[in-house]
Amino acid sequence: MLFHVRMDVHLPADLDPEMRADIVAREKAYSQELQRSGKWPHIWRIVGEYSNFSVFDVESGDELHDILSGLPLFPYMDIKVTPLAKHPSKI
Amino acid sequence: MLFHVRMDVHLPADLDPEMRADIVAREKAYSQELQRSGKWPHIWRIVGEYSNFSVFDVESGDELHDILSGLPLFPYMDIKVTPLAKHPSKI
Amino acid sequence: MLFHVRMDVHLPADLDPEMRADIVAREKAYSQELQRSGKWPHIWRIVGEYSNFSVFDVESGDELHDILSGLPLFPYMDIKVTPLAKHPSKI
Amino acid sequence: MLFHVRMDVHLPADLDPEMRADIVAREKAYSQELQRSGKWPHIWRIVGEYSNFSVFDVESGDELHDILSGLPLFPYMDIKVTPLAKHPSKI
Amino acid sequence: MLFHVRMDVHLPADLDPEMRADIVAREKAYSQELQRSGKWPHIWRIVGEYSNFSVFDVESGDELHDILSGLPLFPYMDIKVTPLAKHPSKI
Amino acid sequence: MLFHVRMDVHLPADLDPEMRADIVAREKAYSQELQRSGKWPHIWRIVGEYSNFSVFDVESGDELHDILSGLPLFPYMDIKVTPLAKHPSKI
Amino acid sequence: MLFHVRMDVHLPADLDPEMRADIVAREKAYSQELQRSGKWPHIWRIVGEYSNFSVFDVESGDELHDILSGLPLFPYMDIKVTPLAKHPSKI
Amino acid sequence: MLFHVRMDVHLPADLDPEMRADIVAREKAYSQELQRSGKWPHIWRIVGEYSNFSVFDVESGDELHDILSGLPLFPYMDIKVTPLAKHPSKI
Amino acid sequence: MLFHVRMDVHLPADLDPEMRADIVAREKAYSQELQRSGKWPHIWRIVGEYSNFSVFDVESGDELHDILSGLPLFPYMDIKVTPLAKHPSKI
Amino acid sequence: MLFHVRMDVHLPADLDPEMRADIVAREKAYSQELQRSGKWPHIWRIVGEYSNFSVFDVESGDELHDILSGLPLFPYMDIKVTPLAKHPSKI
Repeated sequence: MLFHVRMDVHLPADLDPEMRADIVAREKAYSQELQRSGKWPHIWRIVGEYSNFSVFDVESGDELHDILSGLPLFPYMDIKVTPLAKHPSKI
Repeated sequence: MLFHVRMDVHLPADLDPEMRADIVAREKAYSQELQRSGKWPHIWRIVGEYSNFSVFDVESGDELHDILSGLPLFPYMDIKVTPLAKHPSKI
Repeated sequence: MLFHVRMDVHLPADLDPEMRADIVAREKAYSQELQRSGKWPHIWRIVGEYSNFSVFDVESGDELHDILSGLPLFPYMDIKVTPLAKHPSKI
Repeated sequence: MLFHVRMDVHLPADLDPEMRADIVAREKAYSQELQRSGKWPHIWRIVGEYSNFSVFDVESGDELHDILSGLPLFPYMDIKVTPLAKHPSKI
Repeated sequence: MLFHVRMDVHLPADLDPEMRADIVAREKAYSQELQRSGKWPHIWRIVGEYSNFSVFDVESGDELHDILSGLPLFPYMDIKVTPLAKHPSKI
Repeated sequence: MLFHVRMDVHLPADLDPEMRADIVAREKAYSQELQRSGKWPHIWRIVGEYSNFSVFDVESGDELHDILSGLPLFPYMDIKVTPLAKHPSKI
Repeated sequence: MLFHVRMDVHLPADLDPEMRADIVAREKAYSQELQRSGKWPHIWRIVGEYSNFSVFDVESGDELHDILSGLPLFPYMDIKVTPLAKHPSKI
Repeated sequence: MLFHVRMDVHLPADLDPEMRADIVAREKAYSQELQRSGKWPHIWRIVGEYSNFSVFDVESGDELHDILSGLPLFPYMDIKVTPLAKHPSKI
Repeated sequence: MLFHVRMDVHLPADLDPEMRADIVAREKAYSQELQRSGKWPHIWRIVGEYSNFSVFDVESGDELHDILSGLPLFPYMDIKVTPLAKHPSKI
Repeated sequence: MLFHVRMDVHLPADLDPEMRADIVAREKAYSQELQRSGKWPHIWRIVGEYSNFSVFDVESGDELHDILSGLPLFPYMDIKVTPLAKHPSKI
């Protein structure tokens, strides 16, 4: 089933640059693997913010929580999940 | 360019049923025409709410405002538009 | 899967008493049928409010939206759905 | 009587990993002992958040406050308690 | 046990004055009976608002909900209940 | 005159334990002296929070501000003061 | 003592113009009498809003509530009262 | 001096269409006269909302309030005014 | 023209006491000079908070911003400015 | 197309003064270059706040995000972007 997710990243401004680069690189790899698997079909940057809107396609809330809590940036993010249904006007 | 849109519908509970059915039918036709044209690529129902998350692909803010203010349900909706950009992790 | 749902009812104070009684009776029957089916395992009144916290156990967001939008009180409610996962401390 | 509780955990991202593991382990043991005693009948993870929705079954507000303020994670949590009553539609 | 309650009254400005006077008179009688019984030990007007802060002393959330939902002004009020415990500094 | 006060304490989780114990002990003594004097007639713990609801009975806003800003925990608290009046239904 | 008061007026757009003019005229007279008495030393319009910031100088919360609830516009206003004290930098 | 203004229009969905057209036409004429005079240098539609962001260039808060409260749509609008200053980076 | 200003001070609890005393002393001198000049005609402490409501009488938004951003406590304050106009009921 | 942007700067009060001066100087140069290019046609200081309202004129959301995320102050700012359209009353 589909879930809409908003993620807001709050990396401390004084984080060690190497550590920051490492977390961001691991986040990218983790995200791209999930995109390739079909579980993370959409991700958009919100203009002007260190944030994204995403859509996930997973079996259950348990699977989604495993995915989200495994994000390398998880300790630095506020995440808001909204369950989706098919819209009756959808072609 | 892409815009994320949340629409919340507030039809009065005592609206004349025929008028209601008419507005909803016109809304559906209007939405489906825009979906077919490629300008409204995504629409999902938010579970438990008379609301949707949508993504629009338009030339400009002017075009998007024309589309949204032309929705038959526009006088009964709260709409929130967020501009999107390509996410650096997007495959 | 499990969803946490908060429902807040806003029946107009001047609603026709018969109509009100009819809606409330149908709501109760509808709710109890779903409770018996196992799809609505928990419902609690929030003290001092015309509101409830509920837990639903359904196959998908689509099924939950069908259930919630079919509630006789749906046109008079604000509903907020939160997806749940198993808690790691749960015995 | 029953209380609905939402707990949001805010552990500092730079907390010493051993101290973190120790707090989390003690929290789990404390929670499971209360679950076994029947005082903490429900606990669910909120998908995508370091948060839970719980239901407690206690004698009084005093007992509930003793339980909650004794949580090893209490200094790192925002907690919101809502009193519950039997719902008239509950089967 | 003790509960802190905030009540905000929203009587429509165009309510029939007789009906208004009747509701307010029944509210007063209902409140005073509960005050005399010891179940409603404190009630204060919030300055400048048609609102009060109250403290109730009841057996359970069920009893409190029965009392509050029986208020003649209940259909016109927003009510917020907060459970209380003994404060460790209380003499 | 009477004032309703809500106090929310935010002691840093890494505060030196001795300093913490000292502040809390001085806070308790300060509060109890004011309770004995009749100026702080009510104090209740809010269940699940490091917070209280209190009622103060003082001569003026100046006196109340002197009392509150003298609290040993004042630098660590958010305080919200609401003026009270006699309720017309009060027996 | 001094209180800061914000008043926001919400007169229905379809109110009978004569009734509206009458309420507004009585409000003005009521306000000016209190200004002359010294109890309402300051009143300013908030630019762009049907609202004011005022300061009242009264004996008690009871007196202030009597004054505010006697305003002809009281049934149409949201009022927020904040108690004031002498500022230590005030010359 | 310059003021930033946000206006949100809330015309009732069931307003008489002729009355609506008349108000909107008078609003447009009123706005354009002020734009021509130089007092209303900027006005933009907020995409998807019946709202605008504007900038006014006036002598004083009194003048701005006279202008805004004279808007034919004033009884149907929420208005929020923010005073502006020259930005130190402005070329 | 007149502006209503709310200032909320957030000095870190662990600020060096000498530095704190120095900032507060400079703030007081700065404020009193402006009060004497007639530009800061009103300042009141908000009871229970490290905050004030003030009224400024200045030539322009530019002048007010210069004054406020020059406050020794400016880096530690949240400030909210609201433009004022003469109230039609003002005597 | 046009976008309305609000930026709120939160530089830590204890930031190294040289580093602070350097960031602010680079921010100014970056902003002025964009102003000269026509992409940042408006910028105003919000009175009393370390904030601005700006209008950007760019090709797309992607271009705007590149500009904003390149601001030297970006790691220290909250940014809120609102898409604009031509207003029908605009002369």
